[in-house]
This record gives sequence, C-alpha cells and structure tokens, in this order.
Amino acid sequence: MTAPTTAGTRPRHLLDFADWTPERLTALLDNADTMSQVLDRPVRKVPALQGLTVCTAFFENSTRTRVSFELAARRMSADVVSFAAGASSLNKGESLRDTVEVLTAYKVDAYVVRHPASGAAHLVARYSGKPVINAGDGRRAHPTQALLDAYTIRQEFGSLEGKTVAILGDIRHSRVARSNAELLPKLGARVRLCGPATLLPADLAALPGVTVTTDPREAVRGAHAVMALRLQQERMSGGYLASLAEYADHYQVNARLLREAEPGAIVLHPGPMNRDLEISSDVADGEQSRILRQVENGQAVRMSVLYHLLVGRE
Amino acid sequence: MTAPTTAGTRPRHLLDFADWTPERLTALLDNADTMSQVLDRPVRKVPALQGLTVCTAFFENSTRTRVSFELAARRMSADVVSFAAGASSLNKGESLRDTVEVLTAYKVDAYVVRHPASGAAHLVARYSGKPVINAGDGRRAHPTQALLDAYTIRQEFGSLEGKTVAILGDIRHSRVARSNAELLPKLGARVRLCGPATLLPADLAALPGVTVTTDPREAVRGAHAVMALRLQQERMSGGYLASLAEYADHYQVNARLLREAEPGAIVLHPGPMNRDLEISSDVADGEQSRILRQVENGQAVRMSVLYHLLVGRE
Amino acid sequence: MTAPTTAGTRPRHLLDFADWTPERLTALLDNADTMSQVLDRPVRKVPALQGLTVCTAFFENSTRTRVSFELAARRMSADVVSFAAGASSLNKGESLRDTVEVLTAYKVDAYVVRHPASGAAHLVARYSGKPVINAGDGRRAHPTQALLDAYTIRQEFGSLEGKTVAILGDIRHSRVARSNAELLPKLGARVRLCGPATLLPADLAALPGVTVTTDPREAVRGAHAVMALRLQQERMSGGYLASLAEYADHYQVNARLLREAEPGAIVLHPGPMNRDLEISSDVADGEQSRILRQVENGQAVRMSVLYHLLVGRE
Repeated sequence: MTAPTTAGTRPRHLLDFADWTPERLTALLDNADTMSQVLDRPVRKVPALQGLTVCTAFFENSTRTRVSFELAARRMSADVVSFAAGASSLNKGESLRDTVEVLTAYKVDAYVVRHPASGAAHLVARYSGKPVINAGDGRRAHPTQALLDAYTIRQEFGSLEGKTVAILGDIRHSRVARSNAELLPKLGARVRLCGPATLLPADLAALPGVTVTTDPREAVRGAHAVMALRLQQERMSGGYLASLAEYADHYQVNARLLREAEPGAIVLHPGPMNRDLEISSDVADGEQSRILRQVENGQAVRMSVLYHLLVGRE
Repeated sequence: MTAPTTAGTRPRHLLDFADWTPERLTALLDNADTMSQVLDRPVRKVPALQGLTVCTAFFENSTRTRVSFELAARRMSADVVSFAAGASSLNKGESLRDTVEVLTAYKVDAYVVRHPASGAAHLVARYSGKPVINAGDGRRAHPTQALLDAYTIRQEFGSLEGKTVAILGDIRHSRVARSNAELLPKLGARVRLCGPATLLPADLAALPGVTVTTDPREAVRGAHAVMALRLQQERMSGGYLASLAEYADHYQVNARLLREAEPGAIVLHPGPMNRDLEISSDVADGEQSRILRQVENGQAVRMSVLYHLLVGRE
Repeated sequence: MTAPTTAGTRPRHLLDFADWTPERLTALLDNADTMSQVLDRPVRKVPALQGLTVCTAFFENSTRTRVSFELAARRMSADVVSFAAGASSLNKGESLRDTVEVLTAYKVDAYVVRHPASGAAHLVARYSGKPVINAGDGRRAHPTQALLDAYTIRQEFGSLEGKTVAILGDIRHSRVARSNAELLPKLGARVRLCGPATLLPADLAALPGVTVTTDPREAVRGAHAVMALRLQQERMSGGYLASLAEYADHYQVNARLLREAEPGAIVLHPGPMNRDLEISSDVADGEQSRILRQVENGQAVRMSVLYHLLVGRE
C-alpha cells in the first residue's frame, strides 16, 4: 500500500482524493461496513445527523445520484434541502457565490454538489466554509462513485492490494475513470484505462499505478474487476467515434472479452447503462455482475462520507 | 356480498382488485376508520412506518395524487423519496427495469407508481420484489381512488350492500370507472356505467354487478351515489365527441339529473373538476356533494393501504 | 411609537400588516430572538410543530424563499409539502379555490403562498380557513421580508424608534418596498422611498411616516439603513427606464452615495442582487453590508411567524 504522504489532518471535504491518505480512505471504507449493517436492519434509521441540514445542490440533473445522497442523509436523520439549478435564482443571473452564501446563511451544515464545470465543488467549499462532497464536477471527479467501486471490489476480494482493475470506454470525458485512477492505486490496486485513442487522454498515464492502452484484451487480461463506462451518445456528433456499432464491436464488455479476465473477476458499471452498447445485456445481468451491488454499496459509502465529514471524531 | 373466490393469502400489492377478497377489502376500509381518527387528532402523526422508505415513482404528472400519498406516508413516519420521470435517468434512455432495480438497491421498501402505460405497476412489482401500490396506470386501474369512493359511500350509508352507483362520463378512457366497476360489486353494490356510445366500452358490461347504458336518466334512476368523471378535453380532437356543449347538455351531473336519483343520494367526482362541463358548479358545491370528503378520505384510505402492505399482521 | 389602533385580537394570518398592532409585531420580533438562539445551537431542531403540516404553495418560482420557509418549518419538526404550480393540476385548468380546498382536505395546517397576482394570499386564507403567510403576492406585499429587514435594523440599533430607512429602486413594482413602507413606521421608523419618477408611485407617500423623492442624495441623507431593491431588467422593455447605465449612474447604492448616510449606517438588499447595477459589489461585500445577516435573520423571523400563527399562546 502507498505510504501516507500527508500528516494526520482530517480533510474537511471530499472534493477529490488529493488530501486523503490511504489510512483515512480505509477508515471511510471500514465505516461503510458499519453503515451497511444499519441498512440491513428492518428499521434503517440512526440519529447520527439529527438537527443538521444537508443541501444537495445539483446544477446538473442526476436524479439517481441525488436520491442516493438524500436517502443516505435522511437515514441518519438529517434534514435535506434540495436545490436544483433549473428551478433556482441562477436563472436570474445570480452568481454561484451569492447562491452558496445565501444557502450557508440558512445554516446549511454540508453540501453535496453536482455541477457541469470542473472545479465548481472547490468553489462551493471556499464560499461556504462548510463540508462539501463533490457529486460530480465536469470531467474532473466523482469521488463517492470511485469509493463505492473500491468498496465493492474490497467486499469481493477482502482487499484492493495487488488487484488489477480494467476500466473501458470514454476515459477522456469520464470523471468516474479519473476518480478511480486517483483512488484505487492509493489502496494498492493497479488500474488499466482503455478506450479508442480519441477518447484516451495521455495525462492519466502519468498517475502512479495507472497504465493506458487502446487494446481491450490487453486491458482485461488477468484483471480482477472490469468496469464499463457509460458511452455518452453525443460523442458521435463530437467526431470522437466513427460509429456506435464499431465501438461496441471493439470495446463492449461481453462474455467473449470477459474470458480474458481473471477467473472470478467481477463486472462493474457506474450506471445508467446503455445495454448492448458498452456492455452486453447478458453480462450486465450475469453472475459476475456486481452492478446492483455497487448501487447498494453507494448508500453505505455515502452515509459513511457524510458521517465522517459532519460528526466523525478521531 | 360476493363470496370470496381465493383463499386467505395476503396480497403483497395493490395493483388492481383481482387478488383481493371482499374480506380483505373490508379490512382495508375498517383500518381506514382507525386512520381517520389519527387524522382528527391535533398531532396527526404515528410511528407505524418509522425507518421505512416509500418511493413515489410518477412517470406521469399528478401533483394531487402524489401529495396525497406523500402525506399519508409521512404521517406514518416513513421517509419518502419522490422520483419523477421528467427529471430522471429515463431521459437518458434507461429502461423501467433498470430504474426500478436501482431504486430497490437503495433499499426502497414500497412503491407508489403512476404511469401512462397500462400494466406498468405490474412490471414494477415484478422488478422490485417490493410492495407496489398502483396510483394509476394508463386506462387500466386506479385502485386507491376506487377504495376512497367505496369508503365515502360506506361512510354515508353504513354499507355498500345493495347500493346503486351511477358513473357518468368518458368510461372508455377512465381507470377510475374501471377500478370502481371491479371493486364496488365485490362489496355488494351495483354499478351503472353511462356515457356517449363512443366513450362506452362493451367489455365492462361483462363484469358481475355492472350494467352499461347511454341514457343518463336511466343510469341515475334510484342511484345512491352519482359520480361524474373528468372529461379530458382532448377527446374532442380524438373524434369521440361532437361538441362539449352537447356533451354537457346530455351527461352533465346537475340538479335536474340528480332529481332522478334516490333521495339523499350523494355526488362524487375524482377531481380535478371541469366545473359546468361534466358537473354543474351548484351541484359540486351543493349539500349532496361529497367531493371534498372524498379527498379527505383519500388520506385515511392511503394510510390504510400503506400500513396493510408494509406492516399489517394477520 | 404609533399607538395600537385595534384591540387585542390575535391575527390569524400574515397577509400584510393591516391587522397587526405594534405590540404584536414587537412580540414577533422578540420571539425571533428566541428562534435565533435555537439556530445557534449545534442541533438546530425543536419539536414545536411536530405532527403539523405546512404547505408551501408557490404559484411563482422562488427557490430562495421556498427553501427558507421549508427549513424554518422543518426545524420546528413540521412536515412540509411543496406545491409548485408548474407541476400542478392548475395546468389542467383547475381553479385556485379547488386547489386550495383539496390541499385543505389533506389536512394541511398552514399555507405559505407565493403568487403573481396581488391578493391571491387573501383568497387562499378565505378558501382554506387555515393560517396563511403571504410569501409575496404580485406587487402588493411580502411581509416576512419586511419583518426580517426590521429585525436586522433593530438588531443593529436596538430599536426602530426614530430611525430613518432609505429604500432605492423600482418602488412601483416592489412588494418589498410596499411592505416596508407599511411596517417600519408602525415600529417608529421613517421611510424614504426613492427612484426614477416613472418607478415611483404617488400613493405610497400618503402612508404615515413615508416620504417619496426622486433624489437619491436627499433620500440617503442621515439614513440609518439604506436598502437597494433588485432591478427587474425587463423594466427596460416596459419603457420605464431609458438605460441601465443611466439608472446605475443615478440610483446605485455605492460608496459615494453611502457617504451621505449616517455614520454607521447599514446596507440592505432583499436579494438576489444584480451586482454593480442597483448596488456596487464593494458595498455589497463591505463592512456596512448586512445582506447575509438579513438572509440569516430570515430563518429566525419565519420560524417566529410560523410559531406565532400555529401554536403561539397569549
């Protein structure tokens, strides 16, 4: 496992993984185990965040992620206020800073931010002075998704140490790929990023523990986990892809490609899926799939992150 | 009263009334009496569903019905997550099945489903494995509306046994009419369905206890309850109706038509009303009207159904 | 201080200030002090409204105001149901009266109403028979905004008695200006309304304690509080203003204009701001600004109003 590079200061935010040591990350995942037990009870509610208010500020639509965070917060008895940009004063030309300062004056205790611009979550952290969880900003980061991926792999194999994770698809535009490439090596895993050359940025290869290839068989060979990314179909018109059929032909995660992986390898997808485009339907629903388990683990991981940032003690 | 046709297995869902025996239906209505007492208290809250999560999944807009279910769930201390299709991943082409599996992985404990397609609630029940309440699917069923109608009639007359209920309007496209035609005879009432020939499907006449007529005076004669259905004004362009004025002239529930009914007959409408189209304003607001009582009873009935499906014991 | 003109009947609503004596208004502000202490606790929640349901019925979009009321209600443990007109049956042509009667039949205990038509909140009060808080109706009134302004000034100077408040901008279309012109003199302050002649209605000058001027220096001279109103940019096309630059040149609240005010004067704005149009950015963020304090005080004031109308005892 990578040695911790920073001292023990507790991070106040989860914007990306820059400030997070392997020890803190492991503590987050361990705490998610506890939350997972709460979720298995008949009464899935604890008073941990009673009297605190969590604001989900979504400047980009994602019902799935928003609902996941809202449920996580409510199951710890927080009040939740949902702020969607479409319905907001932003329409009247208000700046992000003014919006955040107003919400903070309402005594919001933490923010969950989704925004189309890379770096927006950092701005919310600066303007609010409150704990911020980045729920996806532009192409940059989606750390709770990477954490739930890590948690799911750890759940399967006991540890990330020495495991190989292949991630296939539109790496260039994917905050999920980027966050996993930052996180998984910190926990001891190797990451192989794979996609068509036009969708494969060179800079990620510079990260420790990360390799990059355009060859899907090479990427998947001996991997313990194989993750297909959602292909945004608008990439076609952006000139990145010649045809979807050709893409599926080369890069689809299907039974044939999966034969290259380690026996017992698991299949991941951040959802929502384009079935039979980036992933074949039989594999998505097959016994190696942990796609619904990922979603389930998202609850435990998000509860753990909220707890850690809002009330966790050393 | 119709004899029970199935044995005592407790239905897991309220999709329509096929699986529901008269005994179970009566138990539902009896339990609604208890809920009604809760609603009359100064503090209208009970801990019955504490720690459980109810998802209202509305793939068709209906603020009124959604709010009714959300309040019912919250008054029993459930957490509620609202999922509206317009704001959802369905926009990204995700299938109903994938959406429901994701919500279920978030540990949703029950679904309230409104959908434009007949049969969608059945699919949600199959995909989720959780209790599902159909809050209106296409033209097929809207069982809680029929239950609150039955409850309102029973509240007035003590029993449905031997009562006659006339339902006037666009029977063809009405899930309310269809659900009432299934439910009320199970509880001992006779149902007369009435509308213009183009809006009167023949198949409903085959149900036990149901008759069909195009003559509103014949339908209403001696009835104990007279229900006007909302006329969707788009029926005009569909070629079903020659003119709204002509429709109102023949089928409007007004003081003149009401004179044919039993003295003491009550007037019902599922709302929202087109005043002075399918119902005259004076009758809607008159002393025979139980239209707001229906709305009020909707709370008690929906609390009863949620309780019955989620925690009710034999 | 103005002598009380009506006897001690407790107002059931907060529609405007017509029924509110100075004593009652002072009691509201005193109670807001208590609520402010609740908001300073680590656990910002009290059980005052447990089991009661507050409906925010917004027929005009305002995320900011809606969120403020929802948080205020939830922090007193009320259930909140949000009703937005865009998503409602009003789209189906339902009348305001029918909508309100339905919500009331769901056992809503109080309404917070925002509506584009002046007088709509009065109608909701009449139709529902429940306590109604006007959260802005047309050009007429926005009483909780005026109360939080009064509270902020009182917090600064100990009392409103003998203070001068200058309000600059589009007085004609501003419910904020109108509500302040009604409220502040009741609490002993003088109000000076100021704007271009086209945006300055003559009738407000008839209110006791209110003067009107087109000269911003005259308005601000010796004032203890200077409030800039948001300029709706559509006023340009309405023919009320020749140019925004010219407007800013004359009426912008900036450091130069502020030199005319009393030393220690504070700056207010109801938000959201058009920075560097009606207010300069340096003043908005400067040490005389109480703009974020206003927002913060809005929580305490709205909690106080809800408490007063729903459970307050003499």
